[in-house]
Order: sequence, then structure tokens, then C-alpha cells
Amino acid sequence: MRNEAGTPSLADVARVAGVSLATASRAVNNAYGVSEATRQKVLAVVEKLDFVASPDAERLARGSSRRVALVVPHLGRWFFGEMVAGIERELSAAGVDILLYHVDDPEDRREFFSRLPARRKVDAVIAIAFPVDEEERQRLELMGVAITAAGGRSTDYPYVSIDDYAAGRQAVDHLLALGHTRIGMLASFERTLPAPRENLRSRAYYDALAEHGIAVDPSLVHDMEWGGHNAALATAQLLASDPRPTAIYAHSDELALGAMHALALAGVRVPEDLSVVAIDDSPLADSLGLTSVRQPVREQGTIAARMVLDALSQPGSTAASVMLPTQLVVRESTGPVGTPPAVP
Amino acid sequence: MRNEAGTPSLADVARVAGVSLATASRAVNNAYGVSEATRQKVLAVVEKLDFVASPDAERLARGSSRRVALVVPHLGRWFFGEMVAGIERELSAAGVDILLYHVDDPEDRREFFSRLPARRKVDAVIAIAFPVDEEERQRLELMGVAITAAGGRSTDYPYVSIDDYAAGRQAVDHLLALGHTRIGMLASFERTLPAPRENLRSRAYYDALAEHGIAVDPSLVHDMEWGGHNAALATAQLLASDPRPTAIYAHSDELALGAMHALALAGVRVPEDLSVVAIDDSPLADSLGLTSVRQPVREQGTIAARMVLDALSQPGSTAASVMLPTQLVVRESTGPVGTPPAVP
Repeated sequence: MRNEAGTPSLADVARVAGVSLATASRAVNNAYGVSEATRQKVLAVVEKLDFVASPDAERLARGSSRRVALVVPHLGRWFFGEMVAGIERELSAAGVDILLYHVDDPEDRREFFSRLPARRKVDAVIAIAFPVDEEERQRLELMGVAITAAGGRSTDYPYVSIDDYAAGRQAVDHLLALGHTRIGMLASFERTLPAPRENLRSRAYYDALAEHGIAVDPSLVHDMEWGGHNAALATAQLLASDPRPTAIYAHSDELALGAMHALALAGVRVPEDLSVVAIDDSPLADSLGLTSVRQPVREQGTIAARMVLDALSQPGSTAASVMLPTQLVVRESTGPVGTPPAVP
Repeated sequence: MRNEAGTPSLADVARVAGVSLATASRAVNNAYGVSEATRQKVLAVVEKLDFVASPDAERLARGSSRRVALVVPHLGRWFFGEMVAGIERELSAAGVDILLYHVDDPEDRREFFSRLPARRKVDAVIAIAFPVDEEERQRLELMGVAITAAGGRSTDYPYVSIDDYAAGRQAVDHLLALGHTRIGMLASFERTLPAPRENLRSRAYYDALAEHGIAVDPSLVHDMEWGGHNAALATAQLLASDPRPTAIYAHSDELALGAMHALALAGVRVPEDLSVVAIDDSPLADSLGLTSVRQPVREQGTIAARMVLDALSQPGSTAASVMLPTQLVVRESTGPVGTPPAVP
């Protein structure tokens, strides 16, 4: 390897100053053969460009990349975008760059896990709501870098997450407190990701009903691939069940949106005829007047980033996992069972 | 700078093989003092780890970072997430990494533009729907790397975009063809970004009305900060105007969502009493049954990435800008003016 760590930036200086590389080098090194005017011009450019030795060279010398890999399964969704935004803000303030890996199908996954481990590209990995299987876990271990899970519990790594069970209970207990006993549930899975060991948002529903002595009617439980369109289809099925449910508990705002559209098409009034509650409290919930359990997403990102920064500054230490509280935000989509129609 | 470019990865090999660094080095270099069994074990690990010299060292040697900076103003929104996903897939297939910069307020912008230019971190920059002002343009120029604009037209750089004027015409012409003449418009701006020179989606509305001899009623035009909530407030105002509009043209699906919620709250039926059309055709449109002009977002990302890869393989060349066609997707939210109420 050639010993020319500073050269790339010096080329910039030369180009901007409009001098040859040799002249720029002489000027910077205060060598002979450069007029004072030229030297001042080059030095002004150096200052303007905040001239530094190549950062890659610096990093090699100190054995750190100052980069963190972010592994994200779904970029087009609010939850993932907000999480990345929270992580990015915190890491960039600490001068750490983010290498982004969007891994949204099985082939991407294979590719990612087969290519990453042997490379010294990053100091740490943050996996967002991304359950890894045993083989993938081993590949990650081989990297020998800090791994943090954000937006989901992990048995293998320090994580930051909400308590999905508690969030589900806040939603379902709200419906029960309003007198609803016939409650449909819209759950979702990801076709392209390994299923988590247990869906805690579903567990919350079963437990809450059991505690109130309500038998679960399996025809009221719909587990579908994630998406508003599928939620609308499931809601149409719920409306056909007899007796019809008086409330719907959706695992996410996007599912609730699909449900509310299906209800509007069927002429079912919310909340007079049917209440809808969800989890997320995304901007969608505000736009829809949807009662939803708020989860702090940017804050999860911020905390995940801090966990990584701590791990980098204290190699060998293990960060404590963090579980953030959620909060029910009541809007117009939920009401007592049997609310009479509003009189205009 | 020390001449130890391969060391970091060799340390991985030693750790995984369970031997000292010296032993690993001897085994890899076929030197004396290592048993054949140990040598085979180390070589197996080398193969397993796809052992390469530190990629940073490689890159320094060939003067390329194999990284592209992605500058994104809003990560939590569908459009931006899809665009990043399209870019990521194409670049990662070419072995190029993405450094992500989320720049969503004026302070972030200052920070980004003051820190990036002097660094040799990336070979190229892609700015997503991100108008830059003159000073920022100069900072980018100083980097001396390829710059591409994705999701918006640029007078300074090669870009990939839809034709926003044509998309707006498809939406408004659809309403005019259905007989609507009193059409509200929901436009939006970004508080944290410089305004584009002209809003072509608004221009399309004014031109289409003029061509049909319809005078613009300024009380039907609402220009608000982006967001469904603001769109709902503006829609409530539209409903109070006399005579009431029979249709709404929203610049994006998210604005239409807010509008449709406000209409539902007011008991206004879509499309019997009022039609709604938007631009985007995001999954939201499908969930809502919203008529919307489809823009190919992932494809814009793919093309932007290819433009960058071309620029990297042919330094000094200038990529041709690309304008992708859009297409009206008619769903249930639009109908002829004066449609009688549906009889159940």
C-alpha cells in the first residue's frame, strides 16, 4: 500500500485553487518554488475545505471505521423510517456514519449475511425489528462487533423496545372498559421474515378476554400478511359474522386504516356501530381520529444509538436492554358499546 | 501511517480459529513453526470468513470509497422510504455501500453541508427530493463527486423524476371529464426545505381550469404545511365555502387521507357528494379506495442508482436526466358530478 494518505484531499485543494497538484503540495509544505500569492491562495482553499487527511486512512490507523450498519426490513413504513431517523440523528451527532442495508426478502437476507461478516466495514450493527435465526446469529457473531436490536425484544442481544404485551393490554382493556365483549382482532405477520416466538400483542388479547370471562371466538381473530388491503378484506369477513363484533382491535395503525375503510364502504359508523383501536399512534392515527396506543419510535432509535455508542466507547461491556412505556391516546374511533346514533 | 492494512481481518481469523495472531499469520503465509493441522484449520476459517485485506485499505489504494451518500429529508414517509429502497437494492447489487444522511431541519442541513465537502467518504451523492440553495450547491461542487437528484427536477444536476405537471393534469383532467367545475385544491409545502421555483402540481390545476374556461376561486385553494391533519382542517374550510366544491384535488395521498377523514366526520359521502383524487398511488390509496395518479417510486430509485454507477464507471461523463410517466388509477373515490345517492 502506498503511503499517500493525504493525497485525495490535496487533489481537491489543487482543483479548487486552480493549481497543479505539485504546486498545491509545495504550498502546503511551505517548499520552494511557489510565490507567496499562490501559497496564500492555496492555504485559503485549505482552510475553506477544512482540509484533513483521508478519513479512511485515519480510521485504518486507529482500527475503527466510525461506521455502524443499520439493517432494516421495510423502509417504506412509518415505524421503520422514524426509527432510522432517531438512530441517524444520534449517531451523526457523535460523528458516526450509518451504512444502510435494506433487507426485505429472503434473497437479500442471504446476501447480507453472507457478505457482511468478513468485512471490516463497521464497528457495530443495529437490527431494526428484525428477528434473526440461529445461522444468521452465528454469522453476526463472527463479525465480533457490538449488535443491538431496536424495536423488538431479542434473547441474543441488548435491545430497546416497547412492551408489546402491555401495549396490547392498554388497547383491549380500553375496549373492555367501554363494555365491549365481542371484539375482533386484526393481527399481521411478515411473509418475508421469520416469525417471532410469540405474538405478544395477540397474547394480550387472549389474556384480557380470559380475565373478563369472555370465551375467544376464533372466527373473530384474523391473522394476515401485513397491509391495509388485507385488513379491509378481513374486516369485511368480521362484518359477516353473527352476531357482529362491536369493536375491532388492530395490531397497527395501518391495519386499522384498512378496517375503517371497509367499515365506511359497508356504511358501519365508527364509533356508533363499531369501535376501532390500534397500536402505534402514527400520524395516520391523528389524521383518522383513531384511538391508538402511542409508542415512542424516535426515542427507541435514540436509545439504540446511545447503546451502540456506549458499547463502542467501552469494548466488552454489555448494555442493559430498555423497555419504553406506551400510552393510550383516546380519539373519536372508540365509544361505549351500544352508543345511540348521533342526532345531527 | 502503519503498513498493516490486512491486520484487522487477520485478527478475526485468529479469533475464530482460536489461535494467536502470530500463528494465524504464519499459517496464512505458509511459514515455519505451524503444524499442518493448525494450518488447515486456519485456512478453513479464512475461507469461511471470505478473508480479504481491510476494504478501507483496498479503497485507499485505488482511490475509491465504493460508497454513495444518500441525503434524505423525510424518512418516515412512504415516498422517501420507497425511493431509498430502490436505490439501495441497485447499489448493493453492485457492491456499493450507502451512507445515509437524514437532513430534516435547517440545523441538520447546515451540519451536513459544512461537514461533508472536505471528506473523502463517498464517490457520489444522491439527493432525494431535496432542493438545494446556491450556497449548498457550491459546497457540493467542492466535493468534486457525481451528484444526482432523485424524485425531483434539478437545474443543476442530472435527475430522475416524474413529470409533476403531467401528473397534476391527469388528476384534474379526470375531474373535469366527470363534469366537475368547482374543484378544491390541497397543496402542501415543507416548512424545513427551500421552496421549489414553481409548484408544477399547482400549475397543472390553474392551466386545466383556464383551458376549460373556469375562473379560479382563490377560496378553493389551500396551501398548507405537509400533513394529513392540516389537510383535514383545510377540507373543513372547503366544506364551508358557498357553493361547496364537488371535488377535491390533493397533491398527495396523505393529504387526501386527511381530507377523506374530514369528509366522513361531516357526513359527506365520497364520491356521491364529493369526489377526491390525489397523486402518488401509495398503498394508502389502495386501502382507501382512492383514485390516484401512480408514480413509480422504486423505479426512480433504481434509475438514480444506475445513473450514479454509470457516472462512477465513466468519470467526467454527464448522465441524461430521466422523466418517468405516471398513470391515473381510478378507484371508488371519484364519480360524475351530481351522482345520486346509492340506494342500499
